[in-house]
Amino acid sequence: MVLQSIFWKDGKILIIDQTKLPDKLEYISLDTVNDVAEAIINMRVRGAPLIGVTGALGLALVAYKNRNKSSDELIKLLNEAKEILEKTRPTAVNLFWALKQVYETAIKTRGNVEKIISSALDILKNDITINKKIADIGSELIEDGDVILTHCNTGSLATVSIGTALGVILEAYRKGKRFKVFITETRPKLQGARLTAFELVTAGLKPYLIVDSAVAYTVKTMGVNKIFVGADRILRDGTTYNKIGTLQIALAAKKFGSKFYVVAPSSTFDLHSSREDIKVEERDPNEIRVIGNKYITVKDINVYNPAFDETPPDMIDAFITEYGIIEKPFEENIINKLS
Amino acid sequence: MVLQSIFWKDGKILIIDQTKLPDKLEYISLDTVNDVAEAIINMRVRGAPLIGVTGALGLALVAYKNRNKSSDELIKLLNEAKEILEKTRPTAVNLFWALKQVYETAIKTRGNVEKIISSALDILKNDITINKKIADIGSELIEDGDVILTHCNTGSLATVSIGTALGVILEAYRKGKRFKVFITETRPKLQGARLTAFELVTAGLKPYLIVDSAVAYTVKTMGVNKIFVGADRILRDGTTYNKIGTLQIALAAKKFGSKFYVVAPSSTFDLHSSREDIKVEERDPNEIRVIGNKYITVKDINVYNPAFDETPPDMIDAFITEYGIIEKPFEENIINKLS
Repeated sequence: MVLQSIFWKDGKILIIDQTKLPDKLEYISLDTVNDVAEAIINMRVRGAPLIGVTGALGLALVAYKNRNKSSDELIKLLNEAKEILEKTRPTAVNLFWALKQVYETAIKTRGNVEKIISSALDILKNDITINKKIADIGSELIEDGDVILTHCNTGSLATVSIGTALGVILEAYRKGKRFKVFITETRPKLQGARLTAFELVTAGLKPYLIVDSAVAYTVKTMGVNKIFVGADRILRDGTTYNKIGTLQIALAAKKFGSKFYVVAPSSTFDLHSSREDIKVEERDPNEIRVIGNKYITVKDINVYNPAFDETPPDMIDAFITEYGIIEKPFEENIINKLS
Repeated sequence: MVLQSIFWKDGKILIIDQTKLPDKLEYISLDTVNDVAEAIINMRVRGAPLIGVTGALGLALVAYKNRNKSSDELIKLLNEAKEILEKTRPTAVNLFWALKQVYETAIKTRGNVEKIISSALDILKNDITINKKIADIGSELIEDGDVILTHCNTGSLATVSIGTALGVILEAYRKGKRFKVFITETRPKLQGARLTAFELVTAGLKPYLIVDSAVAYTVKTMGVNKIFVGADRILRDGTTYNKIGTLQIALAAKKFGSKFYVVAPSSTFDLHSSREDIKVEERDPNEIRVIGNKYITVKDINVYNPAFDETPPDMIDAFITEYGIIEKPFEENIINKLS
């Protein structure tokens, strides 16, 4: 069974409410652009590719609801919706990319509702096709007996379906390869414990869950030889923004001799920005202070809660994209493959 | 206010039940050796020095309760109690050291109850004196404007009072130095979020809480220049066993240019064992699977839950002990200072 995390149905968006997993696999309906923004902000949907698709469908929703408005009015409403959605999560580039695609279609077609919806649905469908391709390419890197580690959740629940880093792992398993997998719980939102555990166990694998603190010791003593992570934004020199914790996993990989792969579709690459331009999102302190409605610490303690960190290119062995594997020198090869 | 985590009163042991913190500061009474073992196993008391003191008082308790027995019977009962207590936590060396001290007194004095109890109380009192000395020595390393990071809990709640690594930080603050402190939450048992946060806030500091995954990024971007951690066992070459996560903090320190100090009393040094002899405790999978009675993951998922990791000496800048600061070459200097 391969999950699909998001659907467009009769002018509504259906999503799996990921905050309920692994307790309940429940689809909810997003009926307004504010519903869409709320779902992204509160991480009912998360994962860079899925955030992009959700944003695109958010614009489709606005077009569908206002299909009787004039072209100018519709484009004005789409522009407002785009601005609301752009403010939800600042770091992942896929969202900005997807919103731009749909909005540009609206401009080009002078507000043709059918074409606007098609353009959003194309992003959804392409996400599945692209991830299938990535999973196929990446899974060739995995061999019987490997000991693999992955961080956060980069599976069906981070994309429309299949996934990026986790898609690679699941596809290798589907092809009959047998290996061991360690997964990090990924505080504060526990995407590893809640989502990756659920996806791997559902697919028949038997992963080992570890706390985030155990990464270096696990890589050192358990023979981890391949690490696969996703990305929220990758710069032209290979600098990678991904879930907080990625940097120290890369450090452990480099120190203890594991390969370190970043798995992402081409839409995650941002060829125009430099490090100084990137805003690393800092999230609500209560994400750390509170677990399941209960304070785990002093109530008003200061918190530093960056959602992402920045991994320098020299710690990365290769990028796995739908256009193939990109090795060093990254800047040259990224530009060759992707522009 | 300086907390005292354990007392001996009228033939009973009183401890702060640390599993209740920071919600409740509650002393409970341990009345039998099984109570003592349960408290250590379930981490109602934790921290290498405090575990040692608790074990020693456990033997005092047995002596006190059996003060009317014959010398042979008493020593037999103490030997049984020692075996029960030795099985509670395998990695921290202080427990074995403290049990040995008290048991040897029993042998030497042919079961003199008063002397047995005195010997345990000496360990308790010495812990306070030694930690005061360590805090005084270590606090000299801290300067105004420093950005400090610490892991787990190594304060009054890890010792009898004052603490080791946290004692150094608290003492520097008491001396009027002003600096910034980041503390890790320390999954799975959250000693940082629950205990260190509580101790620092109680003392008037305003620490920043981070998830364990954020260490490397925090060291890199927040200007962390001094890291202080405790230890559960230190070998003669400086190899340090401490709370899981210490290894990757040391990696981050080395990579991004922070000093990395290990703070521990001489009783934490094990001059006789080699790496191969050390058993790293693996704890109950449910420590990770369950938070506050609720499963955060797939119920029966495999878990790898090492309580400690091993940090190699080349990543450590110095050890801070009651006999002074020990720098490289470690083996030579450790033996000179401590044997």
